Amino acid sequence: MKKDVENFYYLLHPRPVVLICSGNEKINIMACSWITPVSEEPPMIAISLWKEGYTCKLIESCKEFTVNIPSIDLIKAVWIAGTKSGKNVDKIALTGLKLSPSKKIKVPIIEDCIGHLECKLSKSLEVGECNLYVGEVLAAYAKEELLEKGLWSENAKVLLHSGGKIFTIPSKLTTVRI
Amino acid sequence: MKKDVENFYYLLHPRPVVLICSGNEKINIMACSWITPVSEEPPMIAISLWKEGYTCKLIESCKEFTVNIPSIDLIKAVWIAGTKSGKNVDKIALTGLKLSPSKKIKVPIIEDCIGHLECKLSKSLEVGECNLYVGEVLAAYAKEELLEKGLWSENAKVLLHSGGKIFTIPSKLTTVRI
Repeated sequence: MKKDVENFYYLLHPRPVVLICSGNEKINIMACSWITPVSEEPPMIAISLWKEGYTCKLIESCKEFTVNIPSIDLIKAVWIAGTKSGKNVDKIALTGLKLSPSKKIKVPIIEDCIGHLECKLSKSLEVGECNLYVGEVLAAYAKEELLEKGLWSENAKVLLHSGGKIFTIPSKLTTVRI
Repeated sequence: MKKDVENFYYLLHPRPVVLICSGNEKINIMACSWITPVSEEPPMIAISLWKEGYTCKLIESCKEFTVNIPSIDLIKAVWIAGTKSGKNVDKIALTGLKLSPSKKIKVPIIEDCIGHLECKLSKSLEVGECNLYVGEVLAAYAKEELLEKGLWSENAKVLLHSGGKIFTIPSKLTTVRI
């Protein structure tokens, strides 16, 4: 029996949740799972962020951001980053996360994460109550020991957001046989 | 030790892979994991598809598409849909998937899937070798017995694409405690 759902977007979950880092002097972090790769050549990703949020202001001002991929170890920090606003609190201090310099841009990465994309704002598009930011990926790197042939191994325990306070991680990997 | 990766986009995997259905008389299906919700009000999602692909032509012609969420049971059909072109073969026949009428649009849904979004093309944006299509969600529904408080239950076994021929499903659900 098929039933109408209240929150359509949860049908596209669970999906990776990342920490977006942006800002000039004062650096802010924000949790986001509305993110997708959009192009391979040039390498580009898109993220959708609430128009009125602090991160939109920062990205529009500094034109750069980093995408930091957490494992499940950072679930509490992700929850804090996703539910507090950087307008009012210092989320770096609150989460205890450590920033490190990026390779190609001024905005730092979050050292505690297992993978990182350094992005330069390329295009943006208004979509309902959000802005969709397309970022060109200038650098992409990850913890070597958690990769297997360029993919996350099972040990990476990439954090996936199911919805609300519910999270999960990937199960065992399966190879399609056809 | 952090290492540069060859395919940046695999750092944003595993992620839900969906079947996009589009077309006028001849209906085609395509597998896609570069998809994300982008707005809640109005409800909108975005998908990125290779510019030269058949699905882009169909979406631009009929201005509608459905997003169909498969469980792991459809892994072989997803692989076929993602690796063959509808220009040359009838992927519905090849996969054996069954189409059903949509509620709000002309393009059908794939009955074998566990969840469905009916979308009307709203905006598009050129991004590298792909086109990013923003669709307004006119209807969203799913198999009732696989939902738990509006989220996919563990029984749904939503198919996640890790990369290449590698897939997975979500593991046990965890509630953040803070």
